[in-house]
Amino acid sequence: MKIIAVRVTPIAISDPPLLNASGVHEPYALRSIIEVEADNGLIGLGETYGDKPVLDALLHVKDRLKGLSPFDLNGLWQRVVSASLGTTASVASIELDLAPGSREDKKELKIFAGFEVAFLDLQARALGIPVHELLGGAVRRSVPFSAYLFFKFASDVDPSYQPDPWGEALDSAQIVEQARTMIDRYGFGSIKLKAGALDPEHEVACLKALKRAFPDHPLRIDPNANWSLQTSIRMAEHLQGDLEYYEDPTPDLEGMAALHRATGLPLATNMVVTDLAEFRRNIALGAVQIILSDHHYWGGLRATQALAAMCDTFGLGLSMHSNSHLGISLMAMTHIAAAVPNLTYACDTHYPWQADEVLKGGRIPIENGCVTLSDAPGLGVELDYDALGALHERYLRCGISQRNDVAQMRKLKPGWQHVKVRY
Amino acid sequence: MKIIAVRVTPIAISDPPLLNASGVHEPYALRSIIEVEADNGLIGLGETYGDKPVLDALLHVKDRLKGLSPFDLNGLWQRVVSASLGTTASVASIELDLAPGSREDKKELKIFAGFEVAFLDLQARALGIPVHELLGGAVRRSVPFSAYLFFKFASDVDPSYQPDPWGEALDSAQIVEQARTMIDRYGFGSIKLKAGALDPEHEVACLKALKRAFPDHPLRIDPNANWSLQTSIRMAEHLQGDLEYYEDPTPDLEGMAALHRATGLPLATNMVVTDLAEFRRNIALGAVQIILSDHHYWGGLRATQALAAMCDTFGLGLSMHSNSHLGISLMAMTHIAAAVPNLTYACDTHYPWQADEVLKGGRIPIENGCVTLSDAPGLGVELDYDALGALHERYLRCGISQRNDVAQMRKLKPGWQHVKVRY
Ligand SMILES: [Mg+2]
Ligand SMILES: [Mg+2]
Repeated sequence: MKIIAVRVTPIAISDPPLLNASGVHEPYALRSIIEVEADNGLIGLGETYGDKPVLDALLHVKDRLKGLSPFDLNGLWQRVVSASLGTTASVASIELDLAPGSREDKKELKIFAGFEVAFLDLQARALGIPVHELLGGAVRRSVPFSAYLFFKFASDVDPSYQPDPWGEALDSAQIVEQARTMIDRYGFGSIKLKAGALDPEHEVACLKALKRAFPDHPLRIDPNANWSLQTSIRMAEHLQGDLEYYEDPTPDLEGMAALHRATGLPLATNMVVTDLAEFRRNIALGAVQIILSDHHYWGGLRATQALAAMCDTFGLGLSMHSNSHLGISLMAMTHIAAAVPNLTYACDTHYPWQADEVLKGGRIPIENGCVTLSDAPGLGVELDYDALGALHERYLRCGISQRNDVAQMRKLKPGWQHVKVRY
Repeated sequence: MKIIAVRVTPIAISDPPLLNASGVHEPYALRSIIEVEADNGLIGLGETYGDKPVLDALLHVKDRLKGLSPFDLNGLWQRVVSASLGTTASVASIELDLAPGSREDKKELKIFAGFEVAFLDLQARALGIPVHELLGGAVRRSVPFSAYLFFKFASDVDPSYQPDPWGEALDSAQIVEQARTMIDRYGFGSIKLKAGALDPEHEVACLKALKRAFPDHPLRIDPNANWSLQTSIRMAEHLQGDLEYYEDPTPDLEGMAALHRATGLPLATNMVVTDLAEFRRNIALGAVQIILSDHHYWGGLRATQALAAMCDTFGLGLSMHSNSHLGISLMAMTHIAAAVPNLTYACDTHYPWQADEVLKGGRIPIENGCVTLSDAPGLGVELDYDALGALHERYLRCGISQRNDVAQMRKLKPGWQHVKVRY
């Protein structure tokens, strides 16, 4: 089996005005849809970032993959490396903070990962088995995700976008209402609050309100490193006992290490341990106790298994990070989560915030907080080419080529600055 | 694809009187040959230890694997664990020292590994691809092994065994002669001397003689932890500059750490880092710089890939350990070594010391020091059932059920004792 064609299609998916440490989501998030076609007519699917530096690199690499066996992951890596992606494009600093996958020094792993998932999908389709079986077998047939809450505006700054059905969420009553809607609709059994956007005392008060409203749901808060160490310690005094884990309140491994020493709280991260070198430093520092994996920037599904073995070896917990994404990513996340025994936390997902889909049959159901595996071959999903075409058209029209939550916020608040540690 | 039958056949293979830290090899080494048969008629092959505790556990587990998919490695692990192998048999202390795979606390990983290789062979056969491709693709088509030299007697203590063709090797001229024969015959590009058997000064003199005779061959010495820290440091003064690595001269991670601090020499091990808990302790201590993998006790080929990722993460070198073995093990070692980019050292193998084989076509060639991969499906080897039957007959007759190099040495030297650190 040899690869004869590779297609990369950028798409723009609608995204609500969600707030974070840097600003606010733009009305569209960008993704790349990857198709890898073999000489037997089978097609493997992948989905990854759609920002210009990533898209350019995917396009630069894709035709170099022709002739490879879809089993030859070492060959894939060699071809990605030999494509000399170098520093072909700069990345806005906001992405450095918010999407570790966009960091320039991770470009090779990221490009590899986008194709690797498609290679694995193709392997599994050729075998007639699901990806979870290829990865060693599902230890759970349903993969739990958590309700991912955001502070948000009622509508986008551009009046041509209608208010989204979720409405405004800036105070504790609105956040509890958002949680209730998500839990009613999807059955989530745990809750994550994206923080770092408003005053820390207010965000902690919102988390306390969630605790009162959902006393049996494990809770997480993620200020995206927008709190100083002092603020993180002060908020920890309020949060003690309420948190399943405390995710990236403060920047840098050293800061997280000091925070853990000061509070004893279990700390989680997708910001300070994002590659193997940082994993190694974290072991030396004892900073973070739970790693949020993300196959999109860790180097794919097999690399996630290696990360899981390392977490097991060093006594670290394993959870999963997400960015705005559609169903191919959701299914890749679900298959790997099902096949990793020590991925014991509910995974993050932005999926409920998206309404679009590129798959036949439309949106993937989340029920009882879980995505349920099927035994369909590969990732178990097929492209709807009409939907893909429409979202690609939207990409061409939307005027966004690289995520910039800071610039988007400035449209509302002209003096808005990206500050590294705001509180 | 489901597993419908599993067969485990113990065999006895002839073994020369090779000396080591504990005593001398018995005239037969024991192995277990594993066949895993699927409902499509395909059979996957494995080879592992044949000592009684391992054999009993393999036999205890084998029928529990029926109904599994050969892709379901997580299911294999669960069935091995749920078989409650516990401490069903004690292991002679000699094996604790010489064959880490025989350690009681590794039994589950070892039993898993024996079957895992057969599962992977079956996966690859079902796909019509070689195991190295299944593992991610060969980064090298020829896998280098090193000449594995032993001090040895001319013949076994039992006069019914004929002198083996290698003859005696007790002094430096004989060791150089042994090396020359091995290199002439197989083309090895590096040399390992098994030490810990004779006086350390004499062994070091033999290594020096090898250095003079083969100045361009990287050299290794492995006293199997039979030297005190003091002796190891004293010998290091003689060996400085002659060694590619210094393998397990002295016991315990702490001892190896002290040795590395004292000498700066690169230390290698298959004795003090033999599982993930020890890997973790080694990182804390900075004791050993090169890990000798061995899929037979690390938990199989996928676990070896995870170990490789960990070595890469923590800046450790990766090489490969061997016990007496036949061609199924040799090919499993070759396929995984080919697919692991950072396995950059020539691997150990006892293969030249064995004359038997259970494979169609007989012995696997080693040329230019390398085993060359083919693209035949799976491990690329088939059982010769006549040969397997004959070696199984020999197992039933030979009177050995568990390796004991100490007892064997006592037949020659009645007062011989197993001493933990002899020199
Ligand atoms: Mg986060
Ligand atoms: Mg050794």
